[in-house]
Amino acid sequence: MSEQRPTVAVIGGTGNLGQGLAFQLTQRGYPVVIGSRKADKAEESARELAERTGSEIRGLDNAAAAEAAEIVIMTVPWAHHQGTLETIREGVQGKIFVDTTVPLVPPKVARVQLPEGGTAAAQAQEFLGENVRVVSAFQNVAAAHLQDDTDHHDCDVLVCGNDKEARAVVVRLAEEIGLRAWHAGSIYNSAVAESLTSVLIFMNRFYKINGAGIQITGEPGEAA
Amino acid sequence: MSEQRPTVAVIGGTGNLGQGLAFQLTQRGYPVVIGSRKADKAEESARELAERTGSEIRGLDNAAAAEAAEIVIMTVPWAHHQGTLETIREGVQGKIFVDTTVPLVPPKVARVQLPEGGTAAAQAQEFLGENVRVVSAFQNVAAAHLQDDTDHHDCDVLVCGNDKEARAVVVRLAEEIGLRAWHAGSIYNSAVAESLTSVLIFMNRFYKINGAGIQITGEPGEAA
Repeated sequence: MSEQRPTVAVIGGTGNLGQGLAFQLTQRGYPVVIGSRKADKAEESARELAERTGSEIRGLDNAAAAEAAEIVIMTVPWAHHQGTLETIREGVQGKIFVDTTVPLVPPKVARVQLPEGGTAAAQAQEFLGENVRVVSAFQNVAAAHLQDDTDHHDCDVLVCGNDKEARAVVVRLAEEIGLRAWHAGSIYNSAVAESLTSVLIFMNRFYKINGAGIQITGEPGEAA
Repeated sequence: MSEQRPTVAVIGGTGNLGQGLAFQLTQRGYPVVIGSRKADKAEESARELAERTGSEIRGLDNAAAAEAAEIVIMTVPWAHHQGTLETIREGVQGKIFVDTTVPLVPPKVARVQLPEGGTAAAQAQEFLGENVRVVSAFQNVAAAHLQDDTDHHDCDVLVCGNDKEARAVVVRLAEEIGLRAWHAGSIYNSAVAESLTSVLIFMNRFYKINGAGIQITGEPGEAA
């Protein structure tokens, strides 16, 4: 490799989306640290992924995983969003923090229920403070599509955040793992991605689609 | 024509989206009534469209236009949303009411700013009452694309509402004017379409796209 990749922590890395992202990033040469609430669960998941990919992967508890990485991606259920933020708050200071959270409130997961304050990612930015560059992404990716190494990823990734450079890092990272990714504006614009998941769940049921997604239409540069 | 089309009122029918929808519906054989705050403005707009299309089109003030139609489509700026709802409240009772409003708050129109209560369309349903079947649609359609009779409409239409039959009427109406339309769930799910416009405005600027849109991916029936 001609370039040193930054170390990425996947907080909640034992879930479906976390495992998928960890697998993809490992395959692209990123040093990956799996985080979980319990270190032994993280270690077990890291060991499995290491065996599968032949790469060296560490497993640590969430706080330690956040400390150990340059880019921290959080993939936890909405019910654990605030609690996990508290755990990793110190570890992510000065870093890029990627929030993938969709604020689904069971049992009505096909109904949009955005939180007070607008979005989960805006809550994270508010809680973590200005020294953390929060970027929101990956809410609409079917986790199953990340678990193998085909390039069949049918849903574009909307990348939101107040820092353009941090967004660009995440856009590039998404593109490297085979996803089409777009700068989509400030952290408040994460409302689209966070609400879209419920609409896609609705459509999957209503139309019997196997993993509905979206694609942005329009040609960059055409309105020069 | 083998089937009698319902009469459609376009409230705020002198604006860009209203004119585009009125033009398209007229071309497809729907009796159209143009509504505006002032009857004379509505009449003028109706006369112009009638000359252009060779169809008979009426222009009335908003309240009378709503009374005169079976389906009422409202295309007004967010600043006039509540005021116009008050005007047409009586006229839309028992009918299908289509809210196209995007809650943009100038000058930051590229930033999502959803209203209290979640969405403009949910506010409309709440205000108009259960006797009105509110459906939200057409928020993301580039109005310019509706002004001529080409079939080049690049943005899918998300159709939200609590009544499935009313949604189906609007899905069909959108399809008849050349748009790809989808049942997208309850009126709360309108959050996606209402917030998406700001993201598309952001993308148009950031990537110099001439009218970004979205398409839903996935094959209906594949998950039978």
